[in-house]
Amino acid sequence: MAWVSYRRDGQDGVGVLDGDHVVPLRGLRRIDATTDVEALLAAEPDPASRTAVAEVELLPASPAPSKVFCVGLNYDEHVNETGRELPTYPVLFPKYASSLIAADRDIPVPPESHQVDYEAELAVVVGRPGRRIAKADALDHVLGYSVANDVTMRDYQYKTHQWLQGKAWDGCTPLGPWLVRPDEVDLRRAGIRTVVDGVTVQESDLSKLIFDVPTLISVVSEFTALNTGDVILTGTPGGVGYRRDPQLFLHPGTKVSVEVDGVGRIDSLVVAER
Amino acid sequence: MAWVSYRRDGQDGVGVLDGDHVVPLRGLRRIDATTDVEALLAAEPDPASRTAVAEVELLPASPAPSKVFCVGLNYDEHVNETGRELPTYPVLFPKYASSLIAADRDIPVPPESHQVDYEAELAVVVGRPGRRIAKADALDHVLGYSVANDVTMRDYQYKTHQWLQGKAWDGCTPLGPWLVRPDEVDLRRAGIRTVVDGVTVQESDLSKLIFDVPTLISVVSEFTALNTGDVILTGTPGGVGYRRDPQLFLHPGTKVSVEVDGVGRIDSLVVAER
Repeated sequence: MAWVSYRRDGQDGVGVLDGDHVVPLRGLRRIDATTDVEALLAAEPDPASRTAVAEVELLPASPAPSKVFCVGLNYDEHVNETGRELPTYPVLFPKYASSLIAADRDIPVPPESHQVDYEAELAVVVGRPGRRIAKADALDHVLGYSVANDVTMRDYQYKTHQWLQGKAWDGCTPLGPWLVRPDEVDLRRAGIRTVVDGVTVQESDLSKLIFDVPTLISVVSEFTALNTGDVILTGTPGGVGYRRDPQLFLHPGTKVSVEVDGVGRIDSLVVAER
Repeated sequence: MAWVSYRRDGQDGVGVLDGDHVVPLRGLRRIDATTDVEALLAAEPDPASRTAVAEVELLPASPAPSKVFCVGLNYDEHVNETGRELPTYPVLFPKYASSLIAADRDIPVPPESHQVDYEAELAVVVGRPGRRIAKADALDHVLGYSVANDVTMRDYQYKTHQWLQGKAWDGCTPLGPWLVRPDEVDLRRAGIRTVVDGVTVQESDLSKLIFDVPTLISVVSEFTALNTGDVILTGTPGGVGYRRDPQLFLHPGTKVSVEVDGVGRIDSLVVAER
């Protein structure tokens, strides 16, 4: 089962995916910090309002997270290509709710950046809120999984040793297409990949995560409470465009797909920001 | 004139400071991203509801910002004591709304950190929202100034090369006591200092900011929209505890004051987190 966050006739809604249709859940408007997770889990579908996915406006798989954490250097191959040492604690940096776009939206290249890069990532969306969550309990706090393209402006990322300004451009990070329940997917060896204009440029699997999902939830919630809808992007495998020879960046007209097997795929067209 | 954000009888409110009293503004509950800035500027005080500041619960000077940006290495002396090079672009990292506490609250030391440090900072709170704000227009987007103690867990900050986990501990960052209108204060040479248990440990003035307020607003808003209530902490002068010899950290029982002349002072007692 997958939850779809969408807008229709100016109203936000949450539904369950049924093939290429979405069946709205009664009484639910949004998955965010105000959502009662038990009510979400128990919500009744409204089959009479079943609609084609193509007929609704998708929203990011978590439309309004209070916090979005990203993890850097969480696959060996990617650590190697950056020339850095293996981390002993997750490398954490932020995006914002305003960074996110739905999976069916184009990725805009802002006029200021000339090094816009892709990063395929598994996204974890928090269900039950918590602080100082033990690793052993962490999966009870996962609402579901989604896919993200952690689009990164490399020329801005490396302006200083802190990465925020390269990662947090408004409206450039696709998150979706929907949210898959943890019990619906076996993540242990799920493939993860990026395809740029038909060429596979990242290809790995989730067994290679250096810090796994329970560890990330435990580490982040040690210092700050996780709220329903919060997002953790779990890092990207080797093969990012900045580290290739020659380098490969996203330009208007580029088609880029990021995919996690069993979770979903985001096919994006890159466009010039209007 | 200064705006006070407070809670009284379970209701949030915004008032203007009148000596040691607060005079509520009619029809205003909060300064946040939903606030109409023009309505705030035009709001009528309600003198009949005048209350002693001591009788209300203070809130952080911006109680619910959508984003909190911090600036590192923004005073020469502090850059020197860290042994780093002068930055050519502001060093940016995040806190969250959940990081903030009111100026009259104790600073809790979490059990996990043994290197809790102080940082006196000028805080800028955004009024009119905007994206890609030109430097020349930036001051039109300042609602007011406040003071922050950018409390930092150094042992967590330096776990990796990214600082988020050392900066974003919930409920440890005093912001206040209130918000002073830009036209009420001359920031050009305003002194900024920290006093720990009676000893002045940081002492500088705002003329020494490497990146000034208009530059910071322009730089941040280039990549993400600034919303009403958003906060920029503008960096700290030399003298932080981690760089002293011997090092000086905050422990339960420590009294720490941070002050910006003409803006305000936050006197905090440090306590063990309960």
